[in-house]
Amino acid sequence: MQTVRVALDERAYDIRIGTGLVGRADLILPSLVAKRVAVVTNTTVAPLYLDRLARPLADAGVQVTPVVLPDGEAYKDWQTLNTVFDAMLAAHCDRKTTVIALGGGVIGDMAGFAAATYMRGVPFIQIPTTLLAQVDSSVGGKTGINHPRGKNMIGAFYQPQLVLADMDTLETLPQRELAAGLAEVIKHGLIHDAEFFGWIESNIEALVRRDPIALAHAVRRSVEIKAEIVALDERETGPRALLNFGHTFGHAIEAGMGYGVWLHGEAVAAGMVMATDLSRRLGHVAPADLARVRSLVAQAGLPVAAPALGENRYLDLMSVDKKADAGRVRFILLERLGHAYVRPETAPDAVTATIAACCA
Amino acid sequence: MQTVRVALDERAYDIRIGTGLVGRADLILPSLVAKRVAVVTNTTVAPLYLDRLARPLADAGVQVTPVVLPDGEAYKDWQTLNTVFDAMLAAHCDRKTTVIALGGGVIGDMAGFAAATYMRGVPFIQIPTTLLAQVDSSVGGKTGINHPRGKNMIGAFYQPQLVLADMDTLETLPQRELAAGLAEVIKHGLIHDAEFFGWIESNIEALVRRDPIALAHAVRRSVEIKAEIVALDERETGPRALLNFGHTFGHAIEAGMGYGVWLHGEAVAAGMVMATDLSRRLGHVAPADLARVRSLVAQAGLPVAAPALGENRYLDLMSVDKKADAGRVRFILLERLGHAYVRPETAPDAVTATIAACCA
Repeated sequence: MQTVRVALDERAYDIRIGTGLVGRADLILPSLVAKRVAVVTNTTVAPLYLDRLARPLADAGVQVTPVVLPDGEAYKDWQTLNTVFDAMLAAHCDRKTTVIALGGGVIGDMAGFAAATYMRGVPFIQIPTTLLAQVDSSVGGKTGINHPRGKNMIGAFYQPQLVLADMDTLETLPQRELAAGLAEVIKHGLIHDAEFFGWIESNIEALVRRDPIALAHAVRRSVEIKAEIVALDERETGPRALLNFGHTFGHAIEAGMGYGVWLHGEAVAAGMVMATDLSRRLGHVAPADLARVRSLVAQAGLPVAAPALGENRYLDLMSVDKKADAGRVRFILLERLGHAYVRPETAPDAVTATIAACCA
Repeated sequence: MQTVRVALDERAYDIRIGTGLVGRADLILPSLVAKRVAVVTNTTVAPLYLDRLARPLADAGVQVTPVVLPDGEAYKDWQTLNTVFDAMLAAHCDRKTTVIALGGGVIGDMAGFAAATYMRGVPFIQIPTTLLAQVDSSVGGKTGINHPRGKNMIGAFYQPQLVLADMDTLETLPQRELAAGLAEVIKHGLIHDAEFFGWIESNIEALVRRDPIALAHAVRRSVEIKAEIVALDERETGPRALLNFGHTFGHAIEAGMGYGVWLHGEAVAAGMVMATDLSRRLGHVAPADLARVRSLVAQAGLPVAAPALGENRYLDLMSVDKKADAGRVRFILLERLGHAYVRPETAPDAVTATIAACCA
């Protein structure tokens, strides 16, 4: 087991990374303020891991209230969140009850927002069961739900007491979702650590076949990089924007195809190829670097070509992105492999050339 | 105009107290991060004060999005909160938009929770238009909504950038609501400042006839006392409990009568008489002190006698209070006038004697 300590302004917490962690009540018990937890999970994850988590806790005298939600982004809404509140209130959960999120990003976001707002805030533990959630949601404290007018529009910044990233839970993950998680791993290398990018290139086969040692290293280095960036900018006003590398194009792909058609990680993968292509056109990275990015994305089982939505549709979709400032698109580009920067002005010709070049 | 600076852990903000403040755009402008506000108010307050607030802001180039909600505690729910999100999203409010609450406690709680969760948090300004909201909601950062299973069950701690307490808005307040606000003013004297309690006794007539100078002093001293107590205990684990003086009995009265039948302040007033009676039975305060409390409560136009719900109903209702710890009622009692303390153990005989003695 490896431990990454995330040190943020108000307090610090540990991310434990390894195998066999879900059943380790001994890791969880020291973080509880009372022997009382509500485990928020979904109908897919509950049959696989709920017992593995709940039994040792119950054996240690912890009162466990399971809250099993329907699976899917479509349920990341107020109605479903309210069923968490209903269940917790019905079970008389008090302010000392810890909410444990057991599942992927949707569960983490919803359980985290429930923890942030139940009786104005109760303690929170995350057990992410997808690679994407392990590398992306473990750090940053973003919680929330969707609104019919936009994704993640309602939420809070709320930090967990503890994160357990158990590689065992990745064994049951569909290959497409594993790949989607690898997109964010690759992103962390590209924006902040050329050496780690090289390591991913050398180990992409092991990662794709889910070697737990390789995966644990990928998660560890990813959360370290994300924690470093987030620590500089907890409220997301400056350097944290770098984490959106590939996301400006990626969000346009997700929205343009209709949410759920492309996985977030798939859209980010094609978006990273586009952002690297744009970086090349602006003279930052060499053609050989673009080829490396394309090749690694392909080896991870991710799309290198974006869908042909049409140039105008891309430009429209990017201008309404939540990260756009008064309608002006901010691109995150690579100065070189391993170093990203924010470019506030656009280069319209280069952007349209990239769209033309990168669409299938 | 007087100013109380509230210094809390993360940051500090000013409470401005005086007359003619609603129309003072010059006080608001320095707190805005962008010239963009959403004013959350209700159908009662909007015709009285929305223009007075919005016109000078608009004249100063601020884009104002008014959000007018139905009036009443019954609307302090998710559905109504969601109409705030709908309106803000429809008006393309971004992360730099400041939410301004213009109204009483319900508006303050809902607008504050909207600000805490819209795009994971936007800036917030409070303009409380009731005496209760001015003395109670201006300090402490409590925001939230009700859940069918309990009041204020969903919410967040979220601090404003600025509070404007304008005595002019109290001119239109129904007398019963003015009295309800005086209950909390009296409470602040009782728990923390015997001299202020004496001042209220000497000035109760001026307060009841809404002398703005007297009201401004009452608000000022109340928020100073509350700020002092909250600063010790922002997350409500220790001394802040003292602010619940009168509330254990009071909540039982509110719930037992059906919410809305007694105003919160009315229930707290009768609850304070009960808590003082209990303090006397436990040997802390003299019978003459109890008589002073009764007399002041009566002069404020507040009920001194609690409704006859029956002893068992009182005990039941108090044991399910949100502040109860594992079903055990914690009483806030007076050691003497001007000094409250938390008594964890109960004194069942004294409690039942108090219930018997104080009910109408």
